[in-house]
Amino acid sequence: METRLNSQLLERAVGELSKLPGIGRKTALRLALHLLRKEPEEARSLGESIIDLRDNISYCSRCHNISEEPVCEICSDPRRDKKIVCVVENVKDVITIESTHQHHGLYHVLGGLISPLDGIGPSDIEIDSLVERVRNEEVEEVILALSPTMEGDTTNFYIYRKLSELPVKVTVLARGLSVGNELEYADELTLGKSIQNRIPFN
Amino acid sequence: METRLNSQLLERAVGELSKLPGIGRKTALRLALHLLRKEPEEARSLGESIIDLRDNISYCSRCHNISEEPVCEICSDPRRDKKIVCVVENVKDVITIESTHQHHGLYHVLGGLISPLDGIGPSDIEIDSLVERVRNEEVEEVILALSPTMEGDTTNFYIYRKLSELPVKVTVLARGLSVGNELEYADELTLGKSIQNRIPFN
Repeated sequence: METRLNSQLLERAVGELSKLPGIGRKTALRLALHLLRKEPEEARSLGESIIDLRDNISYCSRCHNISEEPVCEICSDPRRDKKIVCVVENVKDVITIESTHQHHGLYHVLGGLISPLDGIGPSDIEIDSLVERVRNEEVEEVILALSPTMEGDTTNFYIYRKLSELPVKVTVLARGLSVGNELEYADELTLGKSIQNRIPFN
Repeated sequence: METRLNSQLLERAVGELSKLPGIGRKTALRLALHLLRKEPEEARSLGESIIDLRDNISYCSRCHNISEEPVCEICSDPRRDKKIVCVVENVKDVITIESTHQHHGLYHVLGGLISPLDGIGPSDIEIDSLVERVRNEEVEEVILALSPTMEGDTTNFYIYRKLSELPVKVTVLARGLSVGNELEYADELTLGKSIQNRIPFN
């Protein structure tokens, strides 16, 4: 629906909203018309929260997770195990892993993956700061929790080599069948890995 | 995923975004994290467009469509047929009907439908101003283009009675089979209407 809207304000809001991922022009128009029906305070509150989010967000100086404080609440939580550092690609992954309640250590957010095709090299992401942390803090295990993709594997391997001279155990997330998924729908590579890495039944 | 986010700013933005229709907490988080990866100017532009939209929008004094000018560009377009007024529920419907290119007259936006259950009576929507227009302008036909629902039918009937003393033709959108839909999937009421209101084949 590439209808011209007879309002510059509406056109602009629809244009901006449809830049968001997964929001097309039709959905953007629906959202804009919804906002028009609401009180001005509601639209203002939404608009300001978006501006404030981007303008005032800050990052933890230690793990590079988002944080209101210089050091984030995970890094400064005395109950977290500082000997285990989980390496993730981005902030979203921290939230996802936290929701499993299975990791009780700290994080290190790379801010991306090595991807030569996209011009992203090791120095563009937080690998040096990870090596520094392992060198200077009492880290005993680094868990590589990157996506099982080409870029994830490349980054895993690069970090593994960088850490190989240091007295630290490097582990990677298990690859295998998805819980609840039927065997026949698993791809061959995943199924193969799950056979190689089979574990004692208990 | 009701994960607590370790940032007030992120939590607030996610909360505000998830108030939008069709956007749950998970999508809101995805949008917020997307904005975090963009330049501050992009987030500012989006936020401001939302605030401006609601704060500065104005409505056409004649047809109540949104408009930057006191009278909207449809009402002030000399090529539009001022003898035909199409009555719609809301601004969205104007856009939808304009996209068909089948209506060359003007509009009248009611701003809602009569709905006793929701406490919306005839005086809460722009019916009196419609009657005024028909009385004072050279309107020859009023097209009722409301949704074929209980509320739409009630509103249609109310407007029809209000206009019955005035020398104006009142028509309503045809009800019948959807173009491209198979006969067997049409509901009985619609199919019945389409038999009653059958038209010469040409």
